Amino acid sequence: MRIECLFAPGEIDESAVKGKTVALIDILRACTTAAYAMAGGCERIIPVATVEAATNLAASLDKKVTLLGGEREGKRIDGFDLGNSPLEYTSDVVKRKTIILATTNGTRTISMSQGAEEILIASFVNMRSVIDYVAGLNEDLVSVVCAGQDDRFALEDAVCAGMLIERLCADREVDLSDGARAARLLYGQNEKSIPSLLHDCEHGKYLDGLGFGKDLEACSRVDSLRVLPIVKEGRINKVKRAKRK
Amino acid sequence: MRIECLFAPGEIDESAVKGKTVALIDILRACTTAAYAMAGGCERIIPVATVEAATNLAASLDKKVTLLGGEREGKRIDGFDLGNSPLEYTSDVVKRKTIILATTNGTRTISMSQGAEEILIASFVNMRSVIDYVAGLNEDLVSVVCAGQDDRFALEDAVCAGMLIERLCADREVDLSDGARAARLLYGQNEKSIPSLLHDCEHGKYLDGLGFGKDLEACSRVDSLRVLPIVKEGRINKVKRAKRK
Repeated sequence: MRIECLFAPGEIDESAVKGKTVALIDILRACTTAAYAMAGGCERIIPVATVEAATNLAASLDKKVTLLGGEREGKRIDGFDLGNSPLEYTSDVVKRKTIILATTNGTRTISMSQGAEEILIASFVNMRSVIDYVAGLNEDLVSVVCAGQDDRFALEDAVCAGMLIERLCADREVDLSDGARAARLLYGQNEKSIPSLLHDCEHGKYLDGLGFGKDLEACSRVDSLRVLPIVKEGRINKVKRAKRK
Repeated sequence: MRIECLFAPGEIDESAVKGKTVALIDILRACTTAAYAMAGGCERIIPVATVEAATNLAASLDKKVTLLGGEREGKRIDGFDLGNSPLEYTSDVVKRKTIILATTNGTRTISMSQGAEEILIASFVNMRSVIDYVAGLNEDLVSVVCAGQDDRFALEDAVCAGMLIERLCADREVDLSDGARAARLLYGQNEKSIPSLLHDCEHGKYLDGLGFGKDLEACSRVDSLRVLPIVKEGRINKVKRAKRK
């Protein structure tokens, strides 16, 4: 199995995604939030790239079972039901709901990865489920795509990519791209300090300053949720088991 | 001093380059080749983004003192005088010549960094000259821009960026971006093995396969050349001393 790792959306090209399995990582916070929402029993999540796309889509859906979630500059969008904090997406709020999610980096990167056969939403909290799923695949190439921050490298995403790659390396022959080698090295240097990493990376500090310090702790709970959001044909439907059909 | 590090051209934005000092890194091989050419006594180097721009420019210059250099897919461009191998750019070939250089990643990234106050051409071979120069600056922000490979992260560029950042951290207060922190960590894990790194990174293996194995050794000679190519207004003129005017 070859593993490639891209650190920012500008590295995405057709060879990395078209017809491929992509593991997409946006730790702070879209991917973590999607995992919490799914663990909370939401019916589906529809990731969109823009606020306009979100509100247009919401207008066409049943208001009773639809929630608008997302952020700009880390803060809840005016008129939206929810922001991008994983701790908001509790079972009493999201159960059986359709969530339209618009975030600055994560859902935009999902849009840029369209053409992929499937996009696995990966984060620290659901890493075990991602690994179990990928282990059952018979793919030549897995692309790990980091959303990064404002089109730049984000350390927390790279370290999470490295955890994924390290675990995949544990029990199979792999061929790593330069980016995948680097991610694995960065994970090796941070594996014992994920919570503090999330507090001292650039976007973690920014979110802490906005009052989202508790989110950082929630995003660092490795293997705490047994869910795997998978984007197929533009949406994430509930997947009962972490097995490929 | 704040140091930001961008790993691929897609991370470049105005905030990183406009009016700033940019240290640009393309180890294999444009930046190393420019350092060798300058050490060989060339008069100036004009980096261009495309083959067409190179041949058009050459037509307007005196043939006797102009050389066309560059590569596509690592190989010399048809009709060009030189490829992109640093070992070709010896004194007997380049002395007092103007070199028009067109390479896939390096000179294209230079074009994308236009708007910078000045672009320092950095590599392992001229690292000491880069550090001396930056040490004399009074800048708030230094951006380290890696050319990468085909719009992707390249490990050899990231490790060289890390060397630059590590040395700058040695004797001043610095504020590092996530990318700069990562580059420094990657350098720390590779500092004792630069020559072998250049042989086992992806583009190093590719060049070795083309028969450019000797280039890899030439590109790994840390601090071997006392030159600093600086791009100002689109060209690199000979700089006598590594001091800012």
